[in-house]
Amino acid sequence: MSVLIKGGTVVTADHSFRADVYCEEGRIAAIGDHLDVPDTAEIVDASGQYVMPGGIDPHTHMQFPFMGTVASDDFYTGTAAALAGGTTSIIDFVIPKPGQRLMEAYEQWREWAEKAAADYTFHVAVTWWDDSVREDMGTLVRDHGVNSFKHFMAYKNAIMADDETLVKSFRRCLELGAMPTVHAENGELVHQLQQEMLDKGITGPEAHPLSRPPLVEGEAANRAIQVAQAMSTPIYLVHVSCKDSLEAITRARTAGQRVYGEVLAGHLTIDDSVYRHEDFDVAAGHVMSPPFRPKEHQEALWHGLQAGNLHTTATDHCCFCKDQKAAGRDDFTKIPNGTAGVEDRLAILWDEGVNGGRLTMNEFVAVTSTNTAKLFNLYPRKGSISVGADADIVVWDPNGTRTISAETHHMNVDFNIFEGRTVRGIPTHTLSHGKIVWRQGELMAERGAGRYLHRPPFTPVFEAMARRTALQEPQPVER
Amino acid sequence: MSVLIKGGTVVTADHSFRADVYCEEGRIAAIGDHLDVPDTAEIVDASGQYVMPGGIDPHTHMQFPFMGTVASDDFYTGTAAALAGGTTSIIDFVIPKPGQRLMEAYEQWREWAEKAAADYTFHVAVTWWDDSVREDMGTLVRDHGVNSFKHFMAYKNAIMADDETLVKSFRRCLELGAMPTVHAENGELVHQLQQEMLDKGITGPEAHPLSRPPLVEGEAANRAIQVAQAMSTPIYLVHVSCKDSLEAITRARTAGQRVYGEVLAGHLTIDDSVYRHEDFDVAAGHVMSPPFRPKEHQEALWHGLQAGNLHTTATDHCCFCKDQKAAGRDDFTKIPNGTAGVEDRLAILWDEGVNGGRLTMNEFVAVTSTNTAKLFNLYPRKGSISVGADADIVVWDPNGTRTISAETHHMNVDFNIFEGRTVRGIPTHTLSHGKIVWRQGELMAERGAGRYLHRPPFTPVFEAMARRTALQEPQPVER
Amino acid sequence: MSVLIKGGTVVTADHSFRADVYCEEGRIAAIGDHLDVPDTAEIVDASGQYVMPGGIDPHTHMQFPFMGTVASDDFYTGTAAALAGGTTSIIDFVIPKPGQRLMEAYEQWREWAEKAAADYTFHVAVTWWDDSVREDMGTLVRDHGVNSFKHFMAYKNAIMADDETLVKSFRRCLELGAMPTVHAENGELVHQLQQEMLDKGITGPEAHPLSRPPLVEGEAANRAIQVAQAMSTPIYLVHVSCKDSLEAITRARTAGQRVYGEVLAGHLTIDDSVYRHEDFDVAAGHVMSPPFRPKEHQEALWHGLQAGNLHTTATDHCCFCKDQKAAGRDDFTKIPNGTAGVEDRLAILWDEGVNGGRLTMNEFVAVTSTNTAKLFNLYPRKGSISVGADADIVVWDPNGTRTISAETHHMNVDFNIFEGRTVRGIPTHTLSHGKIVWRQGELMAERGAGRYLHRPPFTPVFEAMARRTALQEPQPVER
Amino acid sequence: MSVLIKGGTVVTADHSFRADVYCEEGRIAAIGDHLDVPDTAEIVDASGQYVMPGGIDPHTHMQFPFMGTVASDDFYTGTAAALAGGTTSIIDFVIPKPGQRLMEAYEQWREWAEKAAADYTFHVAVTWWDDSVREDMGTLVRDHGVNSFKHFMAYKNAIMADDETLVKSFRRCLELGAMPTVHAENGELVHQLQQEMLDKGITGPEAHPLSRPPLVEGEAANRAIQVAQAMSTPIYLVHVSCKDSLEAITRARTAGQRVYGEVLAGHLTIDDSVYRHEDFDVAAGHVMSPPFRPKEHQEALWHGLQAGNLHTTATDHCCFCKDQKAAGRDDFTKIPNGTAGVEDRLAILWDEGVNGGRLTMNEFVAVTSTNTAKLFNLYPRKGSISVGADADIVVWDPNGTRTISAETHHMNVDFNIFEGRTVRGIPTHTLSHGKIVWRQGELMAERGAGRYLHRPPFTPVFEAMARRTALQEPQPVER
Repeated sequence: MSVLIKGGTVVTADHSFRADVYCEEGRIAAIGDHLDVPDTAEIVDASGQYVMPGGIDPHTHMQFPFMGTVASDDFYTGTAAALAGGTTSIIDFVIPKPGQRLMEAYEQWREWAEKAAADYTFHVAVTWWDDSVREDMGTLVRDHGVNSFKHFMAYKNAIMADDETLVKSFRRCLELGAMPTVHAENGELVHQLQQEMLDKGITGPEAHPLSRPPLVEGEAANRAIQVAQAMSTPIYLVHVSCKDSLEAITRARTAGQRVYGEVLAGHLTIDDSVYRHEDFDVAAGHVMSPPFRPKEHQEALWHGLQAGNLHTTATDHCCFCKDQKAAGRDDFTKIPNGTAGVEDRLAILWDEGVNGGRLTMNEFVAVTSTNTAKLFNLYPRKGSISVGADADIVVWDPNGTRTISAETHHMNVDFNIFEGRTVRGIPTHTLSHGKIVWRQGELMAERGAGRYLHRPPFTPVFEAMARRTALQEPQPVER
Repeated sequence: MSVLIKGGTVVTADHSFRADVYCEEGRIAAIGDHLDVPDTAEIVDASGQYVMPGGIDPHTHMQFPFMGTVASDDFYTGTAAALAGGTTSIIDFVIPKPGQRLMEAYEQWREWAEKAAADYTFHVAVTWWDDSVREDMGTLVRDHGVNSFKHFMAYKNAIMADDETLVKSFRRCLELGAMPTVHAENGELVHQLQQEMLDKGITGPEAHPLSRPPLVEGEAANRAIQVAQAMSTPIYLVHVSCKDSLEAITRARTAGQRVYGEVLAGHLTIDDSVYRHEDFDVAAGHVMSPPFRPKEHQEALWHGLQAGNLHTTATDHCCFCKDQKAAGRDDFTKIPNGTAGVEDRLAILWDEGVNGGRLTMNEFVAVTSTNTAKLFNLYPRKGSISVGADADIVVWDPNGTRTISAETHHMNVDFNIFEGRTVRGIPTHTLSHGKIVWRQGELMAERGAGRYLHRPPFTPVFEAMARRTALQEPQPVER
Repeated sequence: MSVLIKGGTVVTADHSFRADVYCEEGRIAAIGDHLDVPDTAEIVDASGQYVMPGGIDPHTHMQFPFMGTVASDDFYTGTAAALAGGTTSIIDFVIPKPGQRLMEAYEQWREWAEKAAADYTFHVAVTWWDDSVREDMGTLVRDHGVNSFKHFMAYKNAIMADDETLVKSFRRCLELGAMPTVHAENGELVHQLQQEMLDKGITGPEAHPLSRPPLVEGEAANRAIQVAQAMSTPIYLVHVSCKDSLEAITRARTAGQRVYGEVLAGHLTIDDSVYRHEDFDVAAGHVMSPPFRPKEHQEALWHGLQAGNLHTTATDHCCFCKDQKAAGRDDFTKIPNGTAGVEDRLAILWDEGVNGGRLTMNEFVAVTSTNTAKLFNLYPRKGSISVGADADIVVWDPNGTRTISAETHHMNVDFNIFEGRTVRGIPTHTLSHGKIVWRQGELMAERGAGRYLHRPPFTPVFEAMARRTALQEPQPVER
Repeated sequence: MSVLIKGGTVVTADHSFRADVYCEEGRIAAIGDHLDVPDTAEIVDASGQYVMPGGIDPHTHMQFPFMGTVASDDFYTGTAAALAGGTTSIIDFVIPKPGQRLMEAYEQWREWAEKAAADYTFHVAVTWWDDSVREDMGTLVRDHGVNSFKHFMAYKNAIMADDETLVKSFRRCLELGAMPTVHAENGELVHQLQQEMLDKGITGPEAHPLSRPPLVEGEAANRAIQVAQAMSTPIYLVHVSCKDSLEAITRARTAGQRVYGEVLAGHLTIDDSVYRHEDFDVAAGHVMSPPFRPKEHQEALWHGLQAGNLHTTATDHCCFCKDQKAAGRDDFTKIPNGTAGVEDRLAILWDEGVNGGRLTMNEFVAVTSTNTAKLFNLYPRKGSISVGADADIVVWDPNGTRTISAETHHMNVDFNIFEGRTVRGIPTHTLSHGKIVWRQGELMAERGAGRYLHRPPFTPVFEAMARRTALQEPQPVER
């Protein structure tokens, strides 16, 4: 199958230009005007539209077993919905139970993911520490294309990594050239504040943000960043939701540290008033960690993207249906944490970001696709419109509109945090590996068509840091 | 015994004015000109001199059993030296071993301190947690005049308080109206970095600052401050030594948080080049934690005092002689941590601060005496020149000079970190409870003359914070 | 006349204590329990109340000829209203017209002020520059007790001081030991933005804040502070209204610069929504410069007070009645700028500050009275409860309430920006020079009873800065 | 002429990859392996080397008439030297005298530049204001490919733009879609401080930095940025030399403002000790504005590049020979301001940046070439290695070394601020429009071969800001 995308404006992270794009055998084969293509090529009329790299969501949890239930979107339904929204790759998470071998968990997740309709790869979580963890990290990097490890600073008595684990794992990451990433919330404080809310008789979803105030995230972000600095590694913070953690990132970057931040479409656009909604389903439907924040944080997060202190956008897509959320009806700490969004991210960011004048179109591409590809060493195979790249492409109609709703979305969940928003700017076509999988509202996702993406270690920033560290090696004093 | 200090200029934290000061029965009985005093009153000629509240050192460790040895100044020699330098009260530390009842340790320290020549009181350390700790904190506050508790975030596998202990102890402090204080260094990082230095074969004192870089302190400071914020308590950080922790304090204060900082005379004036001195005794003689810092940090600390982001000055007086320091000749982690200074603090601060144009004389009094008295509820009994206050007074000759040296100092230690500095500005007389204990170079300290100072809880800032908290009490949503 | 204030709790900037206060011949004669006072002494029963230094308002404009009209409170009505609210001294402004000799303006204002019922003194504005200005500044400091000069960075084509004037005047201030003060708004930007609003057809009071956004103040504040730094003078910023200028102050203070900030009761408590009020009188009634700000600025200003980055509170009392404000009905730039408040400041600050848990009572005294006295060298004559001080005292009932209204206030103006607020905490008695001038709602102000206050130059901070400057004097290189 | 660059690694701002590059008719015609090229193609062996976009220096002053003399490098010698160093384009400045029509000056500079050996274009300075300036700005943008205007905030009584000019010119820039740029130093303060130094008898080059301390730059930077914010334009600051201005930029960017910064190779690597050199020629040879700064500023500037708060690197190349500098032997204010560097920039940045571990190779390309091309709308014609781009290419040997010296450099000046430094990393070949102009130390620059570059207005960031501004348009209140 070959496809010619004709008459559009190519928009990359770099610049915008008029050109046709020809895709063949899964790759972009040619870019230009008056391309010489076979008659058999399917034509996509992109006039008046933008031709952009397909989105990459660096933070999803498909069919994640969590808090006594399992996320309702599996790797097939979730990636299919992603394609409907213009996202052509995801980075999901392998999350071993404390004590479980990393390799065992990895194999489990690989098996689960075989049904995926779009390309995928995994961050692997380090939820505990011993020599086997250290060893498996090496195996994963060397033999399995993993170049990033995740650390939860929250979820005490479950998957929380303590400071000793952070220190040891970050150092191991440095050796391997793999990016340490963190979920930054002080698990001890969350634990105490949850107890305090329950003790006060505040048991509903409104207690969720009260038990996880911004400082809880800011503290942990700062701590993780300092540990990274002490170990001379770069670091990537997932779902930065508030000024507190953004400021920790900004301070560190301003001081020359290599710190990267991810922000969710939800945190950019939804505030914490949702938790006081009188309908439990609505309030609980928004329960995720970190929670949505007071309004002033949203503007700060946009500024973080504009200034280059935040680099990627994600969703932390982790769906739970209303009956799953109901488990926490009498105790907010039992509400499964997670919200959906993998299908809606691009449209929300275009509408609020590009239409809102906060982002240029090129910045939109950078923060929805290219930056993730660069940080996790998938570029330019992913995240670019260039000859030889995977033909993962979204054709974007800036004038098309859609009203987001759980009634019509493709995600396997009965709730949508963006319910009722009408966005201007929607994908008319999505191509995955050169195949049209979304055309004008028709989804043609194929179970199992997605491929596992190998990501090599040692991005250029690791090399630069190694040169710097070598120059600053401490020397003993002769006495 | 009654004393008339005549002809001087009284300098308080507030203002300066010409007046005589008459002391009787241990108190200041009158202030003014042409005072009507008994003929028997001893006259101190203070013309051309300043009459100021005696210094209060809020951070000393007399005869502290630490790292396998005991600090060489005991409560008598240490307080006597203090008096020679114009410091008339100290706040020392009760430091229970993990598992030891706080009351037991408290009683032990009280006994040790009976020999003190100057007034004293204790911060009590919380080095572990269980219900007995909670109970003893209450007893100490209610029955023993303790209004501050100390937490070590460093010294892993020894007296380090983990996050859970911090959270629980801070909350208990809030209930009791007692100030939580912290030694802010990330003990986990220190532990790892020490090991790293030893692994690299850097075993001398030069490894000490490398294993405790500023970020280690900045991280812990920020964490403690955030925990305090989450618990709605004020907080006091001891020995702020670097920009990193000062900035954490400044950020929090700027956001309206009630955070207080202490800085040592040594950190204000000595840089980290000492650790690369070729003479082990000199390098090891400077080993204390946190270590001395690169020069740029010193100016920042002065700015902290000027701006009111740092409030008190101290010494962390904890002496070890050369033969004690020698325990770490082959392994810097075994060098007993601590330096002397209780005698020299005022002179160093006057010379660098007042002569250096960084502080007004009133600010000098505030940061050497009055602020400590206020923060720990000893004011105006201590820290003021006012009728009714304890007659703890220093008469200061701004033109007198002294060259500091271990040869001539009164501290019981064979090393002085200020060795060889000539300061302009020295005490000609010190009065303790109205008795002249230092006169023109003659020390008349009396063993056991010092008194234990009871400090009531709930300074005004606790009351203000309680009012604020009450107004912001969270409410459940009716559903 | 002598007065014994009996049974109250004395609250100073320093501390609080139970004591009676005896006033005689205009001064505080004794403080303590069981004072021996003449039978003729009038007794004020202060039980359950606080006895505090009378307020000092460092920023008022009585009978100010401005924008084609004259402020409606003259020195008598304005100071009488001040006394009703517990404020016993004001610092007003002499504002020469460009070209007018400073001495001539000064004499004019002195004459106007003779009718004052409370004590007063003047900042003198430098609105232009030539040698006569320089000379008159000297005369005012040496012979007339002026120790502060004001500079307007706004009001282009009127009283605005350009950068050259700032530089020259600041340097002159340094020589004289007088505090330079600034109204920080970039006059050029205001001028352009006003024009822009008029060009867009936005002519009502809602254009006022749009023409003076926070950045206009932040820019000028930063500029003035940098000029002060370059000239090595301290600096005082009047009416800091927003985060932008507060941050400029905070940055400079954090870097050790001697910068002081004043904040108005109105800016702490009123937001900019007033300018969109549908009633012109209400909207115009709030027109002052800088304008009221969006809500988030108010919390920041409170934090500034708490952190010690702001030091004094004032009102910029400058009343215009509705018919005066009406001059700008069709053109907001013609609305006389100014609001009243000298009577309400203490109550507003107590209610929002002390009751609100933002300030301790001691901090309340500091920011309403003592800090101003210290900064402008009136301390301890003013701003203290101490023997020998002027008996300017307010007796404060923390449980008394009052609903503020133009109907009932004593200020000579038909509008009150705090209209309808009920405050808890009110003055029951005010003493001026030992005379009761306000008792339980009865105002006994006496025309002409106020005295002009001489303020000597060279507060201690000038001396410290001079020592520092001398140590850093640049030296030429020999070549 | 066609050239095949064979065997190298292409390094762009985006990524690095093994590929040959074929250039034909001045453009890059093909990139890849095993390219099919004519036998006549000249082969450049790039094995072991990097193939990068030629450098763009966004800040030069060739043959600039300034301070009574003329810069010694003319457009030919200066651009030839640039080519020798791997820089293939410059942006120079048209600087009208106050009162001179912009068009007249522009024509003059165009004429002077015809002899250039490399491509060039011009920022045009706005040194005064009237309607003709406004009109000529329009003409230059619409008809002459100018998309940036420069404003000097220094040089009082000469080319300094006052606040009114800034405001009016920035607004005009916004209308035209042209970038306002500023030289940020407070000209009034410089003027006063220069006078002060002369008055103190400090007349040598050591007075130069004393008269232009960092705060002078920080103040002006902050002011310009705030004016840009008020006018809703982006802004670009030339030669950011110190923390003060970098912090102003960083603050603004952190708040989402579109601010861009340029830094000079010299400011990144040379400190202010040079001005105290005992040899006048050396000290004077370093006189430029802003001056070189104390060491701590250099590290901060590198951090600015790393964090993305600074975007471009330049030289402010403006040569004056020793005999020209001698004009200020007795009065430092008469030393012609300027230093050379256009030839050395890339090597200095590679050595300190890439070898020093501060920058990745991709970041090196971004800050030496690509970012400038994007900001000034020359991308991807310049600043990229892509098919269709101008074949302006540098082949870089990371192992080659060179010792910089005025003896051997190609710039027409007898002094080099990098004299004696040995750099590792040098250009072996430079191509300009596909022609080899530098080969292994042989310079083949051709007089007049350079072309004038037209730069269209309205980069994407202008469009985004316009959308944002439209959404926030203020509305009048109906009354």
